[in-house]
Amino acid sequence: MVRFRMEDIDSILEPLRLSVKEQGDIVRELKAQKAPELDIKTAVAELKKRKKALQDKENELVAAEAPFDRVQFEACLKKRFFFGQAFEIYGGVAGLFDYGPVGCMLKNNVIDLWRRHFITNDDMLEVECTMMTPSKVLEASGHAQRFADLMVKDLTNGDCFRADHLLEAAIEKALTDKTTSEELKADMRATSPLIEGFSKEELGAKLSQYKVKSPSSGGDISEPMEFNLMFRSEIGPTGAQPAFLRPETAQGIFLNFKRLLDFNNGKLPFAGAQIGHSFRNEIAPRAGLIRCREFQMAEIEHFYDPADASHSSLESVKELILPFFTKDAQMGGGKLTKCSIGEALKNGVLCNETLAYFIGRIFLFAKAIGIDPARMRFRQHMDNEMAHYAKDCWDLECRTSYGWVECVGCADRSCFDLQCHAEASKVNLQAERTLPQPIEKEVFEAIPVKKFIAKQFKKDTPAVTEAIVSADAADLEKQFENSEKITLAGFEISKEMIQLKKSVKKFHTESFTPCGEEVFTIPPLVAPYKCSVLPLSNKPEFDPFINTISSGLKSLSVAHKVDKSSGSIGKRYARTDEIAVPFGVTVDFHTVKITPATVTLRDRDTLDQIRVPVQDTANLINEMASQRQSWAQVAARYPSQDDWLKENPLE
Amino acid sequence: MVRFRMEDIDSILEPLRLSVKEQGDIVRELKAQKAPELDIKTAVAELKKRKKALQDKENELVAAEAPFDRVQFEACLKKRFFFGQAFEIYGGVAGLFDYGPVGCMLKNNVIDLWRRHFITNDDMLEVECTMMTPSKVLEASGHAQRFADLMVKDLTNGDCFRADHLLEAAIEKALTDKTTSEELKADMRATSPLIEGFSKEELGAKLSQYKVKSPSSGGDISEPMEFNLMFRSEIGPTGAQPAFLRPETAQGIFLNFKRLLDFNNGKLPFAGAQIGHSFRNEIAPRAGLIRCREFQMAEIEHFYDPADASHSSLESVKELILPFFTKDAQMGGGKLTKCSIGEALKNGVLCNETLAYFIGRIFLFAKAIGIDPARMRFRQHMDNEMAHYAKDCWDLECRTSYGWVECVGCADRSCFDLQCHAEASKVNLQAERTLPQPIEKEVFEAIPVKKFIAKQFKKDTPAVTEAIVSADAADLEKQFENSEKITLAGFEISKEMIQLKKSVKKFHTESFTPCGEEVFTIPPLVAPYKCSVLPLSNKPEFDPFINTISSGLKSLSVAHKVDKSSGSIGKRYARTDEIAVPFGVTVDFHTVKITPATVTLRDRDTLDQIRVPVQDTANLINEMASQRQSWAQVAARYPSQDDWLKENPLE
Repeated sequence: MVRFRMEDIDSILEPLRLSVKEQGDIVRELKAQKAPELDIKTAVAELKKRKKALQDKENELVAAEAPFDRVQFEACLKKRFFFGQAFEIYGGVAGLFDYGPVGCMLKNNVIDLWRRHFITNDDMLEVECTMMTPSKVLEASGHAQRFADLMVKDLTNGDCFRADHLLEAAIEKALTDKTTSEELKADMRATSPLIEGFSKEELGAKLSQYKVKSPSSGGDISEPMEFNLMFRSEIGPTGAQPAFLRPETAQGIFLNFKRLLDFNNGKLPFAGAQIGHSFRNEIAPRAGLIRCREFQMAEIEHFYDPADASHSSLESVKELILPFFTKDAQMGGGKLTKCSIGEALKNGVLCNETLAYFIGRIFLFAKAIGIDPARMRFRQHMDNEMAHYAKDCWDLECRTSYGWVECVGCADRSCFDLQCHAEASKVNLQAERTLPQPIEKEVFEAIPVKKFIAKQFKKDTPAVTEAIVSADAADLEKQFENSEKITLAGFEISKEMIQLKKSVKKFHTESFTPCGEEVFTIPPLVAPYKCSVLPLSNKPEFDPFINTISSGLKSLSVAHKVDKSSGSIGKRYARTDEIAVPFGVTVDFHTVKITPATVTLRDRDTLDQIRVPVQDTANLINEMASQRQSWAQVAARYPSQDDWLKENPLE
Repeated sequence: MVRFRMEDIDSILEPLRLSVKEQGDIVRELKAQKAPELDIKTAVAELKKRKKALQDKENELVAAEAPFDRVQFEACLKKRFFFGQAFEIYGGVAGLFDYGPVGCMLKNNVIDLWRRHFITNDDMLEVECTMMTPSKVLEASGHAQRFADLMVKDLTNGDCFRADHLLEAAIEKALTDKTTSEELKADMRATSPLIEGFSKEELGAKLSQYKVKSPSSGGDISEPMEFNLMFRSEIGPTGAQPAFLRPETAQGIFLNFKRLLDFNNGKLPFAGAQIGHSFRNEIAPRAGLIRCREFQMAEIEHFYDPADASHSSLESVKELILPFFTKDAQMGGGKLTKCSIGEALKNGVLCNETLAYFIGRIFLFAKAIGIDPARMRFRQHMDNEMAHYAKDCWDLECRTSYGWVECVGCADRSCFDLQCHAEASKVNLQAERTLPQPIEKEVFEAIPVKKFIAKQFKKDTPAVTEAIVSADAADLEKQFENSEKITLAGFEISKEMIQLKKSVKKFHTESFTPCGEEVFTIPPLVAPYKCSVLPLSNKPEFDPFINTISSGLKSLSVAHKVDKSSGSIGKRYARTDEIAVPFGVTVDFHTVKITPATVTLRDRDTLDQIRVPVQDTANLINEMASQRQSWAQVAARYPSQDDWLKENPLE
């Protein structure tokens, strides 16, 4: 087999690219002049022909560049039982595959990494929704009407074929047939590149003009008809609840939008994510694992305020240099634009920061699972190939022995889906930009009496004040019942420094109510979040420590929850107890003021607290979360919070 | 609410237990005497009534013992979005639930632990099969005929009800109704405990006798009819491939039996495992997450030679003391048998080692995910409640606010399923106990010439001989082309010590053929197995080192493959390259003879080899497998294999 280097490939493709560009300019010109529709259509058809010639040549050269025996490779994968045809002992079913031990391990590892790379790293909210879906849901989303392929039926034996594949195959055969007239061959050559965009009527006309017969019986075929690609079923025994198996996982995220928004305390942006199986009843699936009737997918829906598409983590991907294949470049037959994500944003290749951030993260993930960056490109969809729900779409395509294959789709669905479901279900699926009505509540507060505090504590006054505000008033009241002086955050406080006050206040957000006294005691190994990270208050001076601990935990893939919301530490602990978080880290004034920096580490089950260095924290949590070390083992090596505070007073 | 201690409960239940025992003895006696069938049936009916009274009382006492507000608890789980009703904005669908962020994390952690506890720890073979299943497969397994519930239809509006639930509800209502005659009440009280075992005709007769009407319309109901609990669909557009969604994951393991047996080199025992979703179209699901229409399950099928049910890892669970609830004890109204697994085997409570081992592992898993051992029992199925495929069955039941709930089923399915599928598919699904026909092959071997070796190496002769036998003959030939002497395993070998010989040999097993020269370069993070562990040969002196490294890796949950099969190290490395194993550990004579013990560590991508202490090995592999350290970083800290061998000659 001849091998080509990339430079050779470029020089061979150059004239084909020029020819595409030439025709692209003509189309643009005609559109600008508002020329008759027929003229534009003819010019676009010619453009598509030239684009197809360019793409075919490129795929051919690329395949030659990296000779690779796919047949032998697939045979090896099957022999080693990475995967196999499903139900093979019963003759097999096209488009259904089983994974064997090595295939499972590989797929599990990819999923595990996906979860850590996307969900854990960006605090996304995972959901797992049912596959069985009532018809009305998929009617609302447009899938029941539009998720279809055109097929024809063999009128003698009932076999079904995809109409476009059948037409392509018939043309391919006729072109190599000596008995086909030159006139017909010319017509076929002109038709070939247009098939992808043909309507039902256009396909029918050509199948009839070329007298295409059924490949299985040689008999006549029906007119093309729409075949919905979703598997049908029924829920329950009455027949009154028609259903489909979902064709994608996104709808489940949209349907749970309100719950997720609540979970995120009503705030945008946030992302929902789902890893799960979907089903597409392909008419006649080919191409192995690339087109299956049942497959697993991982999907993210990032919800943001349309008035603000900025992304706070953009910096982390801004310098990545990626190969972009814009829709203009495709129209112009041009090459990839290689530039950094930052530059792509500046020159308008990428329309907003959120899209840019996700493209960067997708690239990093693809690289991490072993895809060679030299074989990747991000291709923007042309206006005429976008799905019914999409506004803008970029695909990560990888160069394989099949040519360029779409591996990840990154679409701006705007608010299409939420609007569809809101209309159909009559449930409001909007996020609030304004705050909801304030709620009145009785509160019991500890108010610092500054004159007495300042008199005794001088420059420590802010720390003492903060400690009093953060404390639980009822708890303080109880302590003062027994003694005149109490210790708070290492300071000795007398009664006159605190005013305990009950009053009615207006709240703009309702705080959570823990359910009863009982809390979960799920073992750390299976607990959802392994630890909470709480600053004593939301003052910015705590942030660097919170960030250090949080990124340490992220690097070890330890799920955790940072809670900077207001409310006393006690209340915030109660909130984490309710979702079974086994360990809690608190950053306080001692963290900020005493070197080396330390934090409080709290155990859910014993309520014990110890004092540990910031730099050890992430590792300790990881050890305990994986149950390699118990709380008792860790606690034995560090001072208790009380002892440590006595030894380390704030001066 | 009144609380009871376990001793109180036992004393309250004592008379009820005695009453069950009394009746159990009568049934046994009648059976032994071969009494008329009607007499036995009447006695069994009475036994069931007494058992139900015992069970109801026990559930009532148990619920009182641990007062727990389930309504409040479930409200909290929904508020925190552990889970929620699916399609709620569209009115919801019974038996379908979505998991939210915290629920997903919890479930993912349980699944992750399950995979490590069962699959990784016992080298099980995982598969992932499709849910969509052709009808003929489930006809062969018996599910299409027997996986059904009895239902009745409201003749006015078509609503459907489970016949047994409807009868139970009607009785419960009539018993509290003052207008019901005492005679009818007595009849109903006698019927109630028998409903579970009623045939279609018996249910129909009672529904008709009690004049039960539809709860939704008050109108008449149909005779009971069988409703298959599997969801129906069709594969492909022709309508010629009817299908069901699988009701359990086990069938996929059975259908892949041959491939898994091949994967395991044709050897029994081995276990296949699958984690996946199943579907049951319940007629009217209740009881929240306990009975869903779509749910995830984890299943293991352990295949063993029926002539040998021993288990090599039994020792590890033998001392566990478990609560067994045997079928005899249930017949006798008796209490749990608390004894060690070893004792249960000795006194015949457990029928074989394999069953005993799995019961032990199930207990350890349940404990690890946080289930209190005091709330567990292993209950043996009575003969009349076993599924159509089972020979013996034990359930792990947990005591919850619903009473005792089955959480894990452990059934001896004997060879029911494999036989069904073999008959229906005409494919042989038997394992070979004898070796297959030998295959003739040309081989190129390096044969040690002992007289020259012994003369120079004296007591090291065995090590040198072993090194020569394990080396690649073609490689040795090439080395000798350039020099008279070469170094092998640290020994300087001259040409006369090796005879290179080509010959035709008979093989009883075919060795694997690597596919071409290209190997996978999947990154360590996603590679299926992270490392291979290979002894230089299958001599027993290597075993302790292999075991140390393997258990070290297991304790860190690092997937690895021990390969003690024959074949040179080079060939075995090629075999692991083919399934993308990134690192290889070799135990050789130097490992055995030089203290501290060291092994060779090999990198797949660079082919570099370094020498590392046995005690560091598992940690190093773990660090590299999780990509916290690169090969280069590790290699920089240890001597290369070549350098180390020069410094450490075998004396």
